[in-house]
Amino acid sequence: MTPMQRALDQARAAAARGEVPVGALLLAPDGRVLAGAGNEVEARRDASAHAELLVMRAAAAALGQTRLEGCTLVATLEPCPMCAAAASHFRVARLVFGAYDPKGGGVEHGPRLYHQPGCLHRPEWIGGVSERESAALLRAFFGDLRRAPGSE
Amino acid sequence: MTPMQRALDQARAAAARGEVPVGALLLAPDGRVLAGAGNEVEARRDASAHAELLVMRAAAAALGQTRLEGCTLVATLEPCPMCAAAASHFRVARLVFGAYDPKGGGVEHGPRLYHQPGCLHRPEWIGGVSERESAALLRAFFGDLRRAPGSE
Repeated sequence: MTPMQRALDQARAAAARGEVPVGALLLAPDGRVLAGAGNEVEARRDASAHAELLVMRAAAAALGQTRLEGCTLVATLEPCPMCAAAASHFRVARLVFGAYDPKGGGVEHGPRLYHQPGCLHRPEWIGGVSERESAALLRAFFGDLRRAPGSE
Repeated sequence: MTPMQRALDQARAAAARGEVPVGALLLAPDGRVLAGAGNEVEARRDASAHAELLVMRAAAAALGQTRLEGCTLVATLEPCPMCAAAASHFRVARLVFGAYDPKGGGVEHGPRLYHQPGCLHRPEWIGGVSERESAALLRAFFGDLRRAPGSE
């Protein structure tokens, strides 16, 4: 199973818990999975508990070091500005993401953080990996939410 | 003691622990202090453990709710893009900060997040409160660090 497929599994598990279906993995320089998570905003009552931030924090804790040099962040959705900026702070080397997020993304949309002249560390990044699958999960989730009040 | 003075105390305590001296408080709508913290990046080995993010997470946990509506975030330094974006996610109503940060700030500098057309929630904000005192702490800390290797 590819890392993105594993991240998509995390997103599906998040949806099953009533969380926005976004999943993430953090890979060591040798490709080993250091951490995996889905969104836990509702479960933790923490608006910052996005999957990306959770896996960066967990991987740093697992390694016992502040920085994640040489590591890769895999996320099913384009990270928001908070998570994109956190990837700079953690010195993540590579970012691979699924669906683009024109409304909430901070990499290719909005503030486009890594394009800012003052950005202190820019991961290499690629978007659009398994984007259809990721976008379908989000559409299904928000579609269900919209239908829910009327359908009961 | 004003909230900013209390946040400066947190910054001083952070410096004493070897952390970048930035402090923050999170105030309830009635002005009560819900959480206070200094940077804990080194202590937690967590590059996202900025004072601002710590107090938002702690206050949400204390209240048992994801959002901090009506609340005020007080920080001794202009928040970075990660923390500024987190304040949007937490729906913080007001942000009061001390020194401006032309290199690392994300409110009045860099991506200027709350000026972005797609920003989902903009706190009201004011900067420059007790900025001399805050900037002096940072200068002393980084000056000491620069001197340290040669002075031993």
